[in-house]
Amino acid sequence: MNSDTNLKFGRKVISVEEARSLLSEYVKHTEIESVPLSAAFGRRLAEDIYADHPVPHFRRSGVDGYAVCAADIEQATPENPVELRIIEQIPSGTVPKFKVYSGLAARIMTGAPVPDGADCVVMLEMTDALPLDDTGLNSSHVNIKKHVSFGSNITPIAGEIRMKELLLEQGSQIGPGEAAILATFGYSFVSVYRKPKVAIFSTGSELLNVEDALQPGRIRNSNSYMLAAQVEAAGGEAIIMQALSDDAEEVESALLETLAKVDLILTSGGVSVGDHDVLVDLFGRFTGKLLFNKVAMRPGTPTSAALWENRLLLALSGNPGASFVGFELFAKPLIKAMAGCQTPFQEAITAFLDVSYDKGSAYPRYVRGTTHAETGCLRVRPAGIDKSSIMVSIKDADCLIQLPAGGKGFAKDERVLIYPIQ
Amino acid sequence: MNSDTNLKFGRKVISVEEARSLLSEYVKHTEIESVPLSAAFGRRLAEDIYADHPVPHFRRSGVDGYAVCAADIEQATPENPVELRIIEQIPSGTVPKFKVYSGLAARIMTGAPVPDGADCVVMLEMTDALPLDDTGLNSSHVNIKKHVSFGSNITPIAGEIRMKELLLEQGSQIGPGEAAILATFGYSFVSVYRKPKVAIFSTGSELLNVEDALQPGRIRNSNSYMLAAQVEAAGGEAIIMQALSDDAEEVESALLETLAKVDLILTSGGVSVGDHDVLVDLFGRFTGKLLFNKVAMRPGTPTSAALWENRLLLALSGNPGASFVGFELFAKPLIKAMAGCQTPFQEAITAFLDVSYDKGSAYPRYVRGTTHAETGCLRVRPAGIDKSSIMVSIKDADCLIQLPAGGKGFAKDERVLIYPIQ
Repeated sequence: MNSDTNLKFGRKVISVEEARSLLSEYVKHTEIESVPLSAAFGRRLAEDIYADHPVPHFRRSGVDGYAVCAADIEQATPENPVELRIIEQIPSGTVPKFKVYSGLAARIMTGAPVPDGADCVVMLEMTDALPLDDTGLNSSHVNIKKHVSFGSNITPIAGEIRMKELLLEQGSQIGPGEAAILATFGYSFVSVYRKPKVAIFSTGSELLNVEDALQPGRIRNSNSYMLAAQVEAAGGEAIIMQALSDDAEEVESALLETLAKVDLILTSGGVSVGDHDVLVDLFGRFTGKLLFNKVAMRPGTPTSAALWENRLLLALSGNPGASFVGFELFAKPLIKAMAGCQTPFQEAITAFLDVSYDKGSAYPRYVRGTTHAETGCLRVRPAGIDKSSIMVSIKDADCLIQLPAGGKGFAKDERVLIYPIQ
Repeated sequence: MNSDTNLKFGRKVISVEEARSLLSEYVKHTEIESVPLSAAFGRRLAEDIYADHPVPHFRRSGVDGYAVCAADIEQATPENPVELRIIEQIPSGTVPKFKVYSGLAARIMTGAPVPDGADCVVMLEMTDALPLDDTGLNSSHVNIKKHVSFGSNITPIAGEIRMKELLLEQGSQIGPGEAAILATFGYSFVSVYRKPKVAIFSTGSELLNVEDALQPGRIRNSNSYMLAAQVEAAGGEAIIMQALSDDAEEVESALLETLAKVDLILTSGGVSVGDHDVLVDLFGRFTGKLLFNKVAMRPGTPTSAALWENRLLLALSGNPGASFVGFELFAKPLIKAMAGCQTPFQEAITAFLDVSYDKGSAYPRYVRGTTHAETGCLRVRPAGIDKSSIMVSIKDADCLIQLPAGGKGFAKDERVLIYPIQ
C-alpha cells in the first residue's frame, strides 16, 4: 500500500478556479482553415469582420408603392387625392433611369433603389392607379390618397450598417444571424479555426466494448460515448480510442502515440487511490509536467491534468457523473478556447432551488440540475438521483448547480448559482 | 393591378396556432436508418429503448476497500480495530472466487462485484493492512478501524436501472446522457430518423450570389444562408438552391423538380402583394393545395404554405427578420417533427420586459429578443433594432418575444411570453 499512501499524501488540493486558470495557461487555438460558408455553421471566426460597404448601399424602399416628392402630397386625402404622372417602374434589382421632379412619381417595389429627387415612398394601399385603357392593367397616372412625411419608407444609405463597422468579432460562433452577415459581405469562404481533435480513453479492465455481450462483473464502456457527445457539443472532433489496459508501459506508449495526433487527450477513470489506477501510475513515471491531481470539488476530487509533449492531458474521474461534471468544468472551456472562443468560461447565473438539498460537503459540490422557468423566475432541482456513480439521470441535466462547501445543506427556495449546459 | 387586388382580397387571415395546426396535419417523419452510435449525436431515436438487463447487473462496490460482514465490525474503532483475514483481491472486471464468512475480508476495487457473504464495503481509508513481510506490499490481514452499516457502499443489483425499464423514448434527441445509456445497453448502432432534407430558395431579381461583386441596386442573397443555419440547428439537412427567377413557369418547374427530392421546400420572399411576387403567382397557377396565405402576426403576415405533390412548401416573407421569425414559428417545428420529435412546438415561458415596448399592433407581434438572468429572474429585451428589414441584429436573438395584439404597447417590467430559440 505504500505507493498508494505516498500518492495520497502527494496530492495538493487546489480550487476549481485555480485548476481552470492553470489549464488556461497552456491553451493554444488550432490553426486557421478556410471553409465554404454553408459548411461553417457552428464554427468560430478566425478574424474580425468589418463592413466593406454600407448597408443598404443605396436608398432602399421599404414598401411597394410610389416614390414621390413629399412636398407634392402634403394635402393628399382620400377625398382630395393628388394626381401624379408615373415616369417609370423600378422593380427590385434594377436601377432608376429618371429623376423624380415635382408632379412625378415612380412605381417602386420593396427593396428597390429610390430614384434621385424622390424623398418618400407611399404604400401601394394608399394609392389608386388611374386606368390608361380598358384592360385596367396599365396606367400613366396615380392618385395619392394620403400624406406621408419626408423620408418615409426609405432606409437611407448606411441606415442599417455603416462602412467599416465591426460586424463580428474573432471567436464568434457562426449561427443564423452571423451567416446572414457573412453572406451579405460576400464571404463565400470563411476563415475559422480547425475543430480541436480530442482523443477519449476510458480506463478499467472491467470495460467491455459496446458491441460485446455482457459478462459477469464487467460493464460496457459508456463514458467514452458520453464524453464524445460532450466534445462535439463543445465544438470539438471526438475520437473514441480503445479503452486503456492496466499495464503502465502500454498506457504510456498508447497515450504518447496519440498525443502527437490530437489537440487534447481526455481520460476517464484511473485517477483515484486504488491499486489499479493507471493514470496515477503514469503521472508517477512520465516525462510530462503534472499540473494538478486533486481539486476541491465533489464529485471528481481526484481530477488531474498534465502537460506532456506540449499537449494537455485531462484525467477525469471514472464515475459517470464525475466524468460528466469534470468535462463541463474543465474540458469544455478548453475545447471552446482551442476552437477560438474568447470567453470560454460560462458565467454562473442565479436560480432558486426547487427542493431542499440536505447534504453538506467539505468541498464545493457541482450537482447536475434541471431548470425550468416559473412566472419569470428560474428554478432548479437536482436531475434525478445525484450520485456520481449514477449514469441514468445525466440525460436530464441542463445545468450544474454550484453548492458552496459547508455543513448545513440548502433550503428550498434558496438562491444558488448554476452553470447552464450549452 | 387587378390581379394584385384579387389576391389581396383572396387572403383569409388565420392565427399562428391555426397555421401550425394546419401544417401539422401533413407532417410525416422521415425513414428510419441505422447509424453507428458515435455518429448519432444530435439525432432522434426511432424506437423506445428498454433495459434488457438491470444496472448494475451484480452487487457493485462503490469504493476501494474491503468487503466484509457488517456484524464483524460493529465494535471497530481506531483504538480497537477489528482484525480480519484477507482471502482474495477483487479488481474491477473480475469475479470473486470465494465467499466471505465471518472473520474474513476481501480486498475490493471500485466497480468490482461484491463477493457473496459480504454485506458492506469499508473504505480503504478506514483500514490498515498489516504487513506480511519487510516490503510492506503484501499482507494477509487487515485492521478495520470503523464500523459501517449493513449495505454500505454496495449498489444492489438493479439499484440504478430495473430490468425492462423504459430508458429512452422514441423521438428523444441523443445527447451525452442518452449516448451513455445506449452504450451501456450495447447499441453500437442506433435506429434514428433520417435528417429531413430541406431545400431553400430565395426569390428576388435583386439577389446576387455570395461570391458576386456588389452591383448598384442589388444585394447578396443572405436569407438562404441564415435559413440554412436555422435548418441545421433544427436537425435538418439544408440544401441551398439557386435563387428563383421572376418567371412563373421557370419557378414552377424548378420547385416541382426539387419537391421530388426533398422533404420540405422553404422559400423566402415573393409572397406579398407586389407586382413581382412569384410565389403568389405560383399559388395562382399550380396544382397543389394552398393551406394558408395570411397569418395574424407581425412580421411575416403574408407567410404562406401549400401542399404540393404530397410535400410541404412553406413560403416565408422576404425581409430577413420576417424570414427568421417565420422559420422559428413554422419551419423549425416541421423539421423537428419530421426528424421524429414528439413535442416539436416549444412551450412559451414567462420573462420580464427589460425595457418598455411602445408599439401596439393589429396582430400579435413576435419580436426577436435577448434574455438574461438577473438574481433568479428571467429578463428580456428586443435584440437590437427590431424592424423586419434589419438583418444585423438577428445574431443577438436568443428568443422570440410574443406580444399580444393591442394598441397600447408594453411597460418595462411587464410579464411577457417568450419562445427560447434552441
